[in-house]
Amino acid sequence: MNYTLPFIPERPAQPRNSGITMMMDKGLSIRQVEDYLSANKELTDVVKLGFGTSYLTVNIEQKIKLYKEAGMKVYLGGTLFEAFIVRNMFEDYIRLLDKLKLDCAEVSDGSIVMPHDKKCEYINTLAKNHTVLSEVGSKEAGIIIHPAKWVSMMNSELSAGSWKVIAEARESGNVGIYRANGNAHTILINKILAKVKRDDILWEAPQKAQQVWFIKLLGANVNLGNISYDDVIPLETLRLGLRGDTFFSYLPAELNKKKIKGE
Amino acid sequence: MNYTLPFIPERPAQPRNSGITMMMDKGLSIRQVEDYLSANKELTDVVKLGFGTSYLTVNIEQKIKLYKEAGMKVYLGGTLFEAFIVRNMFEDYIRLLDKLKLDCAEVSDGSIVMPHDKKCEYINTLAKNHTVLSEVGSKEAGIIIHPAKWVSMMNSELSAGSWKVIAEARESGNVGIYRANGNAHTILINKILAKVKRDDILWEAPQKAQQVWFIKLLGANVNLGNISYDDVIPLETLRLGLRGDTFFSYLPAELNKKKIKGE
Amino acid sequence: MNYTLPFIPERPAQPRNSGITMMMDKGLSIRQVEDYLSANKELTDVVKLGFGTSYLTVNIEQKIKLYKEAGMKVYLGGTLFEAFIVRNMFEDYIRLLDKLKLDCAEVSDGSIVMPHDKKCEYINTLAKNHTVLSEVGSKEAGIIIHPAKWVSMMNSELSAGSWKVIAEARESGNVGIYRANGNAHTILINKILAKVKRDDILWEAPQKAQQVWFIKLLGANVNLGNISYDDVIPLETLRLGLRGDTFFSYLPAELNKKKIKGE
Repeated sequence: MNYTLPFIPERPAQPRNSGITMMMDKGLSIRQVEDYLSANKELTDVVKLGFGTSYLTVNIEQKIKLYKEAGMKVYLGGTLFEAFIVRNMFEDYIRLLDKLKLDCAEVSDGSIVMPHDKKCEYINTLAKNHTVLSEVGSKEAGIIIHPAKWVSMMNSELSAGSWKVIAEARESGNVGIYRANGNAHTILINKILAKVKRDDILWEAPQKAQQVWFIKLLGANVNLGNISYDDVIPLETLRLGLRGDTFFSYLPAELNKKKIKGE
Repeated sequence: MNYTLPFIPERPAQPRNSGITMMMDKGLSIRQVEDYLSANKELTDVVKLGFGTSYLTVNIEQKIKLYKEAGMKVYLGGTLFEAFIVRNMFEDYIRLLDKLKLDCAEVSDGSIVMPHDKKCEYINTLAKNHTVLSEVGSKEAGIIIHPAKWVSMMNSELSAGSWKVIAEARESGNVGIYRANGNAHTILINKILAKVKRDDILWEAPQKAQQVWFIKLLGANVNLGNISYDDVIPLETLRLGLRGDTFFSYLPAELNKKKIKGE
Repeated sequence: MNYTLPFIPERPAQPRNSGITMMMDKGLSIRQVEDYLSANKELTDVVKLGFGTSYLTVNIEQKIKLYKEAGMKVYLGGTLFEAFIVRNMFEDYIRLLDKLKLDCAEVSDGSIVMPHDKKCEYINTLAKNHTVLSEVGSKEAGIIIHPAKWVSMMNSELSAGSWKVIAEARESGNVGIYRANGNAHTILINKILAKVKRDDILWEAPQKAQQVWFIKLLGANVNLGNISYDDVIPLETLRLGLRGDTFFSYLPAELNKKKIKGE
């Protein structure tokens, strides 16, 4: 940190289990990854190589190596996992992870129908040799999953071996835990929080208003994902109360007298 | 490609006549161009130096050389062509193309009124020594052109020597072939497709939903343009069915049983 | 400039007092700053290290040095000033400016309540050794300030020593001088212009439509701020009439006959 200020919330040291930021790489070049790491190394915990971009990435081994050497968990987007599964190629998928030296993997069913037992079996198999993130929620706009089902799926996936369960929002932030207009499904999220350990959940929150909403609800050390590479530093200022939206979140009452209006 | 998957649509080899991606450069620095090429060379066919940015570009000869050496067609945005025409400086424009060693040019009338005969004359003159892309459609929001006129303009411009005709959408994607909200003018587009050879049309489609819409309508190898430099890889995953939105587009019926709902 | 065209508005030479472009740096890496400068040096006058990003910036001294050597004024975002003030740490803030060798500073009250006398005192104190930009307008969406108050605050801040007064819009462009939908508060802005010297005002205008609106109202050499690093070149083409939106702004009447419709 370049200077000292009181009332800045503490962030756990890396590698950490809470307060995680997951960045979504949609096709950065090698030099862009180097640039990114030079400025964001301390702020990034997990990197997702989004959807099927890994199919096209030039020098993918080098990219993965750069992220791993910087201490980050790297995994292939869940849509790619599903692209293998729908083609009945799970064994090939494991071989791909080996070939790319990935020790992290996502299991999801956002695009395809998958019996939940089967999903937990995939998690369980992969968890033997990999850190698994599994995702709950559909990518389709019209699909509503009952809160009780979200809870039971999340908890059984954690039992099956997931390190974190991801709450789906897509890159756009308008499905799953959000409405079409990007607003959070408050009741759903509160019901999930009542029954699932909060450090075990990674909330996709691509839009700034969504990040602010979760930080105000759960504090600086909420796990957030699908963050664009140029939003990781701005997100960290939100976590720390160094941006207008969360400016008063960590100040003691006697300093709040300067607040412009109630929040 | 970093791995093999069945049911991925084939893309023509470069240089290609269909399945073209046109990227819009709004002011990338030389090193950003190098970064771009290192990751997107195989995916980019045409580069537009957007509107009048070329007036300001530092080391423009070097930039053009980098793109051309990577096998791409490069041209100056149509608004600049019109800026010369409105000032009665067509000869100067040709000299500029020579000076910049550009073998590609755009002819458009999105901002100015131009008799269509005259437009075809410009196309014809430039086509003697250049690959010409000509653009149909107004940049003004309120201007409606009848579908029959779109068709006749497109076909006479192709006859005059255009390599492709571009269907206008601007960088924002809310005029020309799209409504103010970004939705496609379906009837207009279908009427154009009934009368103009589809490989001869390059559709401006800056928004992801517009790219998805055209890929679903015309397949992986539709010509798309005004793509932002960081959207070219995501667009390629859409073309290949490696992203949620087009996940089932190329799968055989027996694998579609895992589809979450009809599309 | 790469070629010569008539009817392009003149821009004052740098360092300039009007026609200023203020770019907002939200966390560029050192190499990204170098890239930026290689393409945008002549177009950028002022750089804001946005909100509290400076707390996290790796090699911040080097970054500031790069911008300053390129002839730019550099300052820390007003939210950071307020973060020090709300903690009663004004002396520490001055020490920070010294340590970072910043000769430019922002004074704002967008997040906190501050008696206006006190604000002018801060301006006056900082102006002894720094170029001061002070900002008027709240970051809160619901806060309405009467036009007469905007005017009196702006003028007394200029009297207190501000080089420019900034009209608040946030990074998003939907508070202060804009409505929630991004449209300008026309009456407010005209009342300000009737009473405050126009070269003394720097309008935050992050959205393209807002930039166009101000250029059409006040000409090529309006002062505009909160411009994203990749919008500075596009903004310059708007200022110069080399983009569709301002294409006819500087053309003499006899060339306007080619205008598609009235503007």
